[in-house]
Amino acid sequence: MRTNPPSPPKVLAFDVFGTVVDWHSGIAREVQALRPAIDGDAFALAWRAGYQPAMRRVMSGELGWTLIDDLHRLILDGILEQFGLGDLTEDDKKHLNKAWHRLDPWPDVVAGLTRLKSRYTICTLSNGNIGLLADMAKRGGLPWDCILSAEVFRAYKPDPATYLGVAKVFDVAPSEVMLVAAHQDDLAAARACGLQTAYIERPAEFGAAHPKDISPHPANTRHAKDFLALADQLGC
Amino acid sequence: MRTNPPSPPKVLAFDVFGTVVDWHSGIAREVQALRPAIDGDAFALAWRAGYQPAMRRVMSGELGWTLIDDLHRLILDGILEQFGLGDLTEDDKKHLNKAWHRLDPWPDVVAGLTRLKSRYTICTLSNGNIGLLADMAKRGGLPWDCILSAEVFRAYKPDPATYLGVAKVFDVAPSEVMLVAAHQDDLAAARACGLQTAYIERPAEFGAAHPKDISPHPANTRHAKDFLALADQLGC
Repeated sequence: MRTNPPSPPKVLAFDVFGTVVDWHSGIAREVQALRPAIDGDAFALAWRAGYQPAMRRVMSGELGWTLIDDLHRLILDGILEQFGLGDLTEDDKKHLNKAWHRLDPWPDVVAGLTRLKSRYTICTLSNGNIGLLADMAKRGGLPWDCILSAEVFRAYKPDPATYLGVAKVFDVAPSEVMLVAAHQDDLAAARACGLQTAYIERPAEFGAAHPKDISPHPANTRHAKDFLALADQLGC
Repeated sequence: MRTNPPSPPKVLAFDVFGTVVDWHSGIAREVQALRPAIDGDAFALAWRAGYQPAMRRVMSGELGWTLIDDLHRLILDGILEQFGLGDLTEDDKKHLNKAWHRLDPWPDVVAGLTRLKSRYTICTLSNGNIGLLADMAKRGGLPWDCILSAEVFRAYKPDPATYLGVAKVFDVAPSEVMLVAAHQDDLAAARACGLQTAYIERPAEFGAAHPKDISPHPANTRHAKDFLALADQLGC
């Protein structure tokens, strides 16, 4: 732990997929509800694996500005056959695509956010579209002060316009915003824009069978097991 | 009252200034806190009167896209002298300009929104910028599911992009969105886009000394005294 942490932030901006919600078990559960025999673990990993390449197609200009709901559908259509789901009805596909709106928060999240909200402005900073994030928050009881998204900034993370956009929205300095995320690359990009950063351990993000590296990176302002531990560290 | 109201909406989108919060008494209170002798009523009316003309300068292209915080400051700078406030420090001007972030909700609002939220998705649809609306919500305990703003759509009401934008964000038909507002012109523009509309009486919007016409317009889906009456009508 640092001996001289920087001044406390005013705004905590949270990455969502993996950091706030457990996409792996949620997607596995939803696809198995449609087809009990499917390998939910492999399906969830395959769907998520299409995410970064799809966003790169938008960022490179190959695709125009596209909401994550539509990118999810594009990726889904590309993996249905390999999982024997080519015969799903259009209604089933639409329903499955919105599984990303119905992901559950990790067990510490609601209590942790509620404590953090008592002292800080808490918002999302996700590549997910606003409607997805709002549906997820309403279903899961996530007490955001504000939902910010790539959709607001017309740019995906790690574009600096997203991190700096949070500071602009709240009329504060970049150093008064802390990005909270379970992904070191997201945090590194935020740090390059002058934000404070908090790493959250989510060892089971990719499923219990695929534990991920959660070792601390000294450049982060904070490193916490979960949102309750972050609330402890931030005096809430 | 209609005998056959349309299907219930899924999303309630709320105008904010005048409908949710009492800008007149809030602005009067804040300027009088700086200068007790000032005519707070006249000052609040003068500041607000500059709002529509300033937005028209943006919509006409004379000004580039501008946040309401910056339009408020432009208008404020234009009226300071006539109210004998030309000697305010820059810090005082900045503080006063943010009075719009610190407006109080009408007395029925928090209880009414809480009831409406139990059954519908509730969001703002305001020309105010996101940071303003988020600060206001945090201070006043407004339990929005989502803060939508002209800033998200890069267009001010009554541009159809704002009303139709709400439907797009939540992936519903325009007729599944109800605009809730204390202003017939806002409601008429929403109706022209296919939204349902609810008029809320706010007779003291311009101050007790300037009661406004609150007569019903038959084209509105609902007409309610306040948010509690709207919750009654919408079965919450």
